[in-house]
Amino acid sequence: MKNILVLGAGKSATDLIAYLLQYAPQYDWFVTVGDYDLQTALVKVNNHPRGRAVFFDVHDADARANYIFTADIVASVLPAAFHILVAHDCLRFGKHLITPSYVSAQERALDADFKNAGLLFMGEIGLDPGIDHMSLMKMIHHLRSQNAQITEVRSYCGALIAPESDNNPWHYKFTWAPMNVVLAGQGGTAQYLQNGSPRYIPYNRLFARHEVYEVPGYGTFEAYANRDSIPYRQTYQIEDVPTLLRGTLRKGGFCNAWQALVTLGLTDNQLQLTNPAALTYAGLTEAFLPADSTASGSLPERTANFLGIHPQSEIMYRLNWLGLFSDVPLKNNPQTPAQALLHLLSEKWKLEPDDKDMIVMLHKVNYQLHGAHRAHTSVMVITGADADNTAIAATVGLPMAIMTKLALTHAIQLTGVHIPVMPQVYEPILTELQNYGIHFTNTDEAL
Amino acid sequence: MKNILVLGAGKSATDLIAYLLQYAPQYDWFVTVGDYDLQTALVKVNNHPRGRAVFFDVHDADARANYIFTADIVASVLPAAFHILVAHDCLRFGKHLITPSYVSAQERALDADFKNAGLLFMGEIGLDPGIDHMSLMKMIHHLRSQNAQITEVRSYCGALIAPESDNNPWHYKFTWAPMNVVLAGQGGTAQYLQNGSPRYIPYNRLFARHEVYEVPGYGTFEAYANRDSIPYRQTYQIEDVPTLLRGTLRKGGFCNAWQALVTLGLTDNQLQLTNPAALTYAGLTEAFLPADSTASGSLPERTANFLGIHPQSEIMYRLNWLGLFSDVPLKNNPQTPAQALLHLLSEKWKLEPDDKDMIVMLHKVNYQLHGAHRAHTSVMVITGADADNTAIAATVGLPMAIMTKLALTHAIQLTGVHIPVMPQVYEPILTELQNYGIHFTNTDEAL
Repeated sequence: MKNILVLGAGKSATDLIAYLLQYAPQYDWFVTVGDYDLQTALVKVNNHPRGRAVFFDVHDADARANYIFTADIVASVLPAAFHILVAHDCLRFGKHLITPSYVSAQERALDADFKNAGLLFMGEIGLDPGIDHMSLMKMIHHLRSQNAQITEVRSYCGALIAPESDNNPWHYKFTWAPMNVVLAGQGGTAQYLQNGSPRYIPYNRLFARHEVYEVPGYGTFEAYANRDSIPYRQTYQIEDVPTLLRGTLRKGGFCNAWQALVTLGLTDNQLQLTNPAALTYAGLTEAFLPADSTASGSLPERTANFLGIHPQSEIMYRLNWLGLFSDVPLKNNPQTPAQALLHLLSEKWKLEPDDKDMIVMLHKVNYQLHGAHRAHTSVMVITGADADNTAIAATVGLPMAIMTKLALTHAIQLTGVHIPVMPQVYEPILTELQNYGIHFTNTDEAL
Repeated sequence: MKNILVLGAGKSATDLIAYLLQYAPQYDWFVTVGDYDLQTALVKVNNHPRGRAVFFDVHDADARANYIFTADIVASVLPAAFHILVAHDCLRFGKHLITPSYVSAQERALDADFKNAGLLFMGEIGLDPGIDHMSLMKMIHHLRSQNAQITEVRSYCGALIAPESDNNPWHYKFTWAPMNVVLAGQGGTAQYLQNGSPRYIPYNRLFARHEVYEVPGYGTFEAYANRDSIPYRQTYQIEDVPTLLRGTLRKGGFCNAWQALVTLGLTDNQLQLTNPAALTYAGLTEAFLPADSTASGSLPERTANFLGIHPQSEIMYRLNWLGLFSDVPLKNNPQTPAQALLHLLSEKWKLEPDDKDMIVMLHKVNYQLHGAHRAHTSVMVITGADADNTAIAATVGLPMAIMTKLALTHAIQLTGVHIPVMPQVYEPILTELQNYGIHFTNTDEAL
């Protein structure tokens, strides 16, 4: 019998755990699910005869070592920063490790150690990163095999809300870590490649400089640039590609309205508010406007004037719908503008029990073949069932689960620290994902 | 004989050292000047019979202790971060300490220790902070003594270039730490008080939201807000004042042009440039523009269009004068946009040997007295002699020097950690500064 240790039983672990328990009898697995909230783990294991739920505190080094020691493989959806602790224990006790998180420089430095120990550390094998790498690499390898010259790669993903559950003017609800959404883009000036040269987009206009795409059947989407696309020349083995951009998708209308929040200063998580207990949302918004004695009009009118937009514009409608001009006191005693915004959005953008989320992934690859300029477009749209069975949990968890199976059955015998860019990994995983309705629609046309 | 230890012999120490050496025979002082660059210390001491220059490395704990042990008082113009090391040695050996730097929270926490040891640590006794505190407190105390109600306090200072040496379209040259000028405002969203409420100005529009003042005889000045004015309610003992702003002055036209650099992203010191060796200044500017295939025109035209200004505007003239559109390769292999900008500005804004600098300080205090609304304006303009004898060195060094004298002669017997807000300190210092032409012109008028 093989022992699988799943670390973290939260929202993103639902499909991972369900898959492993489902196949446990067939492959003779036993699945231990550890979480700091034992109740969450108990619910996910649901008394399955081949599973058990345990209390797990990643900071308890002895318990961590004990659980990892008795496992054959570890699949961790813990917060990314904790994976380095788990990785060291995996090395110490000779266990494979699977995570959906970006591989840090510190983790990448363990490559030789994992290789020498005959072990695999597979990171970035969820949705984004994960399915994006796999599907794009498959496309790139296919084009390369035809001797095509790739001239432009654009790759986008968004965790959104399905049209049938979309009932707010932002066309957005939280299906993922809310504070990450509020602070999106604040890691530093975004970088990408355009016609062979780096291009820079400071945070102060990141959301204004979005691109617009139509996805047939799903309407208009907007993409803002991710932090740094340039290292993906190496990752995707397209070192000579002149244009390369990775981005994040939102529904049409979102980006310009979010830019208004950024421009006002409401996404600032450094500024310590003076006396927040005495502030209303209107007062907070007012504090960012010029205190110009010549300005007149209502707060919404002066905000629109400050932003250089019409008071009846869609942006103003969205800001007003959030409650930024209301005399309601700030909720939950926020210390910063970003916290005040988060508390407001958490109510307004709450995923209701029957809401369906929606993942959209979009790759656009331009290439030259036999002298012809062509554009390949690849689109994946996945809709969740409800707030407990989300598309994001499926698309993050299933690639991890399949990878875990392939490692345990020796179908993949890689060693070292990797991300899923090689055919022996992406081919079987993308093939099996189709059984779950996770697949791409491809079009290829002349430019 | 009393021993004075001066730490740091750089530009800001010139007048401090000259004053102490001048009065050394009269008061029976001996002045030791320590600097990491011995030659600089030797030049400043200039073989004076009551002075000596020594090599001083603040990180050499033994040497630091030895020099402080043999002194009666320490006047330090070292970088602010080193003062805590010096302060601990002063406590250990029972010495007074005088600095022109902002007193950090860590230093303020030594208040009881200095008091218990019967010692004085006087910080913020240079120009800004220093003369600003002293002159403003004198004004506030005077108004309070008349039972005036203070309704508005605005206090500004700028280290600028004198009109006779002003020969560039920015009306600015570096007379002080150049990188601090490039990074000005990046410490976080600026805060001030307006009509009793905090107001916030994010960095993305700090320089756009400047105020404009006319100083009779000196033309138009622009003021942008300092980082955080709100704690000065306590500092200045005006806890009930509804409007309070501290700011930095530039000559008219500077702020909107600097805002253009901020908006473009050229002041970013976090972004690591990709392959800077291959970049020109035009290439760097281009990298921040939208890579929009529909945009046409020259780089300056597209920059003007992006900034929403006329291609022949004064802002564009200033950007062009800097060389931001030139095909010259980036100088000195900068790692960040801010470094690239610094290297360019260091040439363009260089203080020539015969150039005269100019300090402008401006206080505007509104008050009510006997039912009348009045405005008090206090202006100080100090012009330097040349690049070696600057107004900034005089205005930073002389308050320190006079304070050192007052402590050594027991004219001031304060103990603890202080800044110069009390009459027993500011009265004698402001009076003596008048001998050096450092004084304010006051006007008081009905509002």
